[in-house]
Amino acid sequence: MSVAVDRDVRDLGEFRFDCGESVPSLAVAYEAYGEFDGDNAILVCHALTGSQNVATHRSGRGAADDADTIDAPHDPAGQAGAWWNDIVGPGKAVDTTEYYVVCANVPGSCYGTSGPASEAPDGEPWGTDFPPVTVGDWTRAQRRLLDDLGVGRLHAVVGGSVGGMNALDWAQRYPDDVRRVVPVAAAARLDPQCLGIDAVARRAITSDPNWNGGDYYGDEQDRPDQGLGLARQLGHVMYLSKASMADKFGRRSAVRGGSAGGELFPADPGAAFFPYRDVESYLDYQAESFVDRFDANSYLYLTRAMDDYDLAEGYESDAAALGAFEGEALLLSFTGDWHFTTEQSEALAEAFRESEVPVAHHVVDSDHGHDAFLVEPERVGPPLRDFLSEGVEGKAVSDTAEDDEDVGGSEYAPVHNSLFSG
Amino acid sequence: MSVAVDRDVRDLGEFRFDCGESVPSLAVAYEAYGEFDGDNAILVCHALTGSQNVATHRSGRGAADDADTIDAPHDPAGQAGAWWNDIVGPGKAVDTTEYYVVCANVPGSCYGTSGPASEAPDGEPWGTDFPPVTVGDWTRAQRRLLDDLGVGRLHAVVGGSVGGMNALDWAQRYPDDVRRVVPVAAAARLDPQCLGIDAVARRAITSDPNWNGGDYYGDEQDRPDQGLGLARQLGHVMYLSKASMADKFGRRSAVRGGSAGGELFPADPGAAFFPYRDVESYLDYQAESFVDRFDANSYLYLTRAMDDYDLAEGYESDAAALGAFEGEALLLSFTGDWHFTTEQSEALAEAFRESEVPVAHHVVDSDHGHDAFLVEPERVGPPLRDFLSEGVEGKAVSDTAEDDEDVGGSEYAPVHNSLFSG
Repeated sequence: MSVAVDRDVRDLGEFRFDCGESVPSLAVAYEAYGEFDGDNAILVCHALTGSQNVATHRSGRGAADDADTIDAPHDPAGQAGAWWNDIVGPGKAVDTTEYYVVCANVPGSCYGTSGPASEAPDGEPWGTDFPPVTVGDWTRAQRRLLDDLGVGRLHAVVGGSVGGMNALDWAQRYPDDVRRVVPVAAAARLDPQCLGIDAVARRAITSDPNWNGGDYYGDEQDRPDQGLGLARQLGHVMYLSKASMADKFGRRSAVRGGSAGGELFPADPGAAFFPYRDVESYLDYQAESFVDRFDANSYLYLTRAMDDYDLAEGYESDAAALGAFEGEALLLSFTGDWHFTTEQSEALAEAFRESEVPVAHHVVDSDHGHDAFLVEPERVGPPLRDFLSEGVEGKAVSDTAEDDEDVGGSEYAPVHNSLFSG
Repeated sequence: MSVAVDRDVRDLGEFRFDCGESVPSLAVAYEAYGEFDGDNAILVCHALTGSQNVATHRSGRGAADDADTIDAPHDPAGQAGAWWNDIVGPGKAVDTTEYYVVCANVPGSCYGTSGPASEAPDGEPWGTDFPPVTVGDWTRAQRRLLDDLGVGRLHAVVGGSVGGMNALDWAQRYPDDVRRVVPVAAAARLDPQCLGIDAVARRAITSDPNWNGGDYYGDEQDRPDQGLGLARQLGHVMYLSKASMADKFGRRSAVRGGSAGGELFPADPGAAFFPYRDVESYLDYQAESFVDRFDANSYLYLTRAMDDYDLAEGYESDAAALGAFEGEALLLSFTGDWHFTTEQSEALAEAFRESEVPVAHHVVDSDHGHDAFLVEPERVGPPLRDFLSEGVEGKAVSDTAEDDEDVGGSEYAPVHNSLFSG
């Protein structure tokens, strides 16, 4: 199947951020797949360290044109590249032969959209002089990009993790512009446990002497790789679960060589007597590959945006924030996810119900933790596909409210001995 | 009530560690409360960063003698001091008018017992040349200290957290020497999630340039306070729970002043737009007070000992490891604890049952996370008191096996959406 692909960076001109500061020129890198027919646009919102490169579409203009044309300081490599390839594409759940699918790298990130690593008007990288960004800034930048692309009302906004917060922000901020909204593994706000871990992660970055107050972009300067690597390791702990870590690693020693600490962290003589475990090897590998693809200041900026997001801000409640939205909502959550819990999605479902929005909360039984929304496409795809075409009445779409026995039951509700309680 | 108090440091002479290395002279700092009658000794094992200073006993020899005589590089201040004051003391659950209660600072720590910060034979601090330590080393050092004090068989060994592993090691290593064993909020081994977080914490320390390969004790040298502070913050995230963090902090902004990052971590210009939250303020405060009382190398050493501990090592199973133990066991666990879970204590109870040891697993319903064993004395005290005097038949002692309905039920068993599953 031939699907048109548009990969580009748009200059949206002057952009004023929620903080009150402006940049004279906001560049936004995006990818768009398929043909816009006036009514079939879907915006996909990426997660914290994701990119606009949702899927590995070959260019419709032939393989020779398939070169990546993004003027990005880092290419969307590794886990940022084709991050939802099993979900978005020709014939897939978000079918690019049917829908016009747009994904844009968020302001503050580092895959071609303006952020701390971008060039400021003075020709130097912005560093921490780049204005602080919010999820609301992301939404407003996406709105302007879509205007630029000639897209008015969206058929749907779909996003995972903080991308799901981005999707929620669309339903609150531009309620008339969205027919269907799909926050996947998301929440109305982050809980204090995750706020705490994010705060530690940021301190790991700013404590790295190479961070240097955010000024480390010079050719002669070392990057704060150790701090950023530590931050990423904490992220991965949040993305997995006790069950998935037990399955993946157990307490096994790593076969892969290397001293405890891998390549990135200093060797520790006292460690020599003890095994270098699989779980350490995994975390070290994740840290090492992440620092090659992501900017440390962007990590500070984007985690702050995530931590700051609160659907109810400026309203009396989540339900009030969603009061003007007249579309339908599908919430997808995963039982093993402690970063964005099933309980949080259920609270969100209640808010939609209270504001009389047709909503379905589809709970996926999974041990894969937060990563489930990326690694369980066969369970995410069917409800998403059917919701996009049929709404909450879609065949594969289930809802927690369908069976009152389940609501408050052990399947997903808060249990006392759980981290999810409270 | 007058209770004799003995605070001292014993030189146990040459000590060979599990790793094969020896030190010519192992100093062990201890406190002992009450009078030994030949049959009433209880060993209390402290947690990771605890000390021998279990409780605030005044000296039986009069207030004038009450000065702390411990020759410790750091006094057991802050949370290391009088850490179980509500449990141990005259008339308390571990009644020092009835029992002779001994607690010793473990090898590798920094409260007077030999460790990386102690002086090596060459007159310089050991640093990372101090031999790696294991929980087994702790037990063997305690055995030698007790020999020195004239104590043979113990009435009981009681310990919380990794101190509970220490207590388990007693039951396995010296089965004839212990009548009753009480692992509190403990486990037969740490799970991979906690292993991962500990590994990140150690990397935070070794990445701090002031750590300097473990050589930072010089008067002119800065200490690796930022790395140790980050490690401690990760510890506190593990000690709390989602519920307790929601209760304590919510998403509130801190009243206490200070830029994001507190005093210890560099200011971040990009943070100015966002609130400094209660949860951050708490974590920064914990980091700041911890670095004043604990040694970074000790933190590396003791977390490695904890991570390495495995009751079944050298045996076919946990039950086999406990096969020679002929005493009784009380396991205390807390429903909100995800560092050492109720499920892990239940697995341990099964191992005791399989090896035909009279055992009770007393589950305390608590939202306080792992900290519960320290902050819920009114719920820990009664079963502990009754077990010490009556064994598993003690009145306030409950057991999960008493009600089969509960075993595997929602009260504490693994639930699918829990971090504790798997």
